[in-house]
Amino acid sequence: MDVVNLAEKFRQFTEAWSPRIVGDLNDMQVKVVKIRGEFVWHHHDAEDELFLVVEGQLRMRLRDGDRDVGPGEFIIVPHGTEHCPVALTDEVHMVLIERRGTLNTGNIINERTVAEPQRI
Amino acid sequence: MDVVNLAEKFRQFTEAWSPRIVGDLNDMQVKVVKIRGEFVWHHHDAEDELFLVVEGQLRMRLRDGDRDVGPGEFIIVPHGTEHCPVALTDEVHMVLIERRGTLNTGNIINERTVAEPQRI
Repeated sequence: MDVVNLAEKFRQFTEAWSPRIVGDLNDMQVKVVKIRGEFVWHHHDAEDELFLVVEGQLRMRLRDGDRDVGPGEFIIVPHGTEHCPVALTDEVHMVLIERRGTLNTGNIINERTVAEPQRI
Repeated sequence: MDVVNLAEKFRQFTEAWSPRIVGDLNDMQVKVVKIRGEFVWHHHDAEDELFLVVEGQLRMRLRDGDRDVGPGEFIIVPHGTEHCPVALTDEVHMVLIERRGTLNTGNIINERTVAEPQRI
C-alpha cells in the first residue's frame, strides 16, 4: 500500500485534458489531470464527478452560472448536469474522483475522449 | 451546487475524531476530520477508505509497517485491512472519502464511534 504524493504525480506528465489514474477506492477511481484553456460541454448520465483543485484557478461553467474553484476547494457536479471546465490560469492541476469507467467527455465522443486513462 | 472550501470547513469545528460530511458523490461521501493522538485499531469489512492530508503529519499504522502521510499526500486503505491512524503533529486535518455509512471505527464499536456524522 503506497502513499501517493500528488505533486510527484503531476511531475510525471505534461499533456492537458488527459486524466491519469492514481488510485482505486471501491468502484471509484482517483485521477489527476492538468487542464489548459476550455473543454467541451458534456454531462455524465449516471456518474457524479468531484473536482478538487490543487493548483491554478478552475471555472466550472454550468447552465445556471459559473462556479470558480481555487486551490483547496472542490466542486461535485451531479450526474445529468451539463458542465464545461475552463482553466482561468495558464494551467490547472486537479484531482478527479469518479466511478471507474467514467469518460472524461461524458456523453460526447470526440478527439478529446480518453477511453482508457493511463495508470501512473 | 456549491464550491466547498476545505479551510473554511475546518474552521467550523474543533472536536477531534469526529468526521463531518461535506459532500456526496454517488454512493460515496466526502468527510473532513481533525485528529489528535492515536485512534483505535480497526478494519472495514467492505469499504476502502481514502485519507488525504491537508495539514499536519499522519502516521497510518498497518500490520505490515507504518506509512507516513503529509500535506498533499493520500493513502487508500483497502477493505479488510487493519489500520490505526495516529497524528504525528499536534493536530492533523484530513479529507476522508468512503462509502456512505462507513463507521469511523469500522468493526469496533466504542466511545469513539460516530454513528451519524454531522453535515456541515
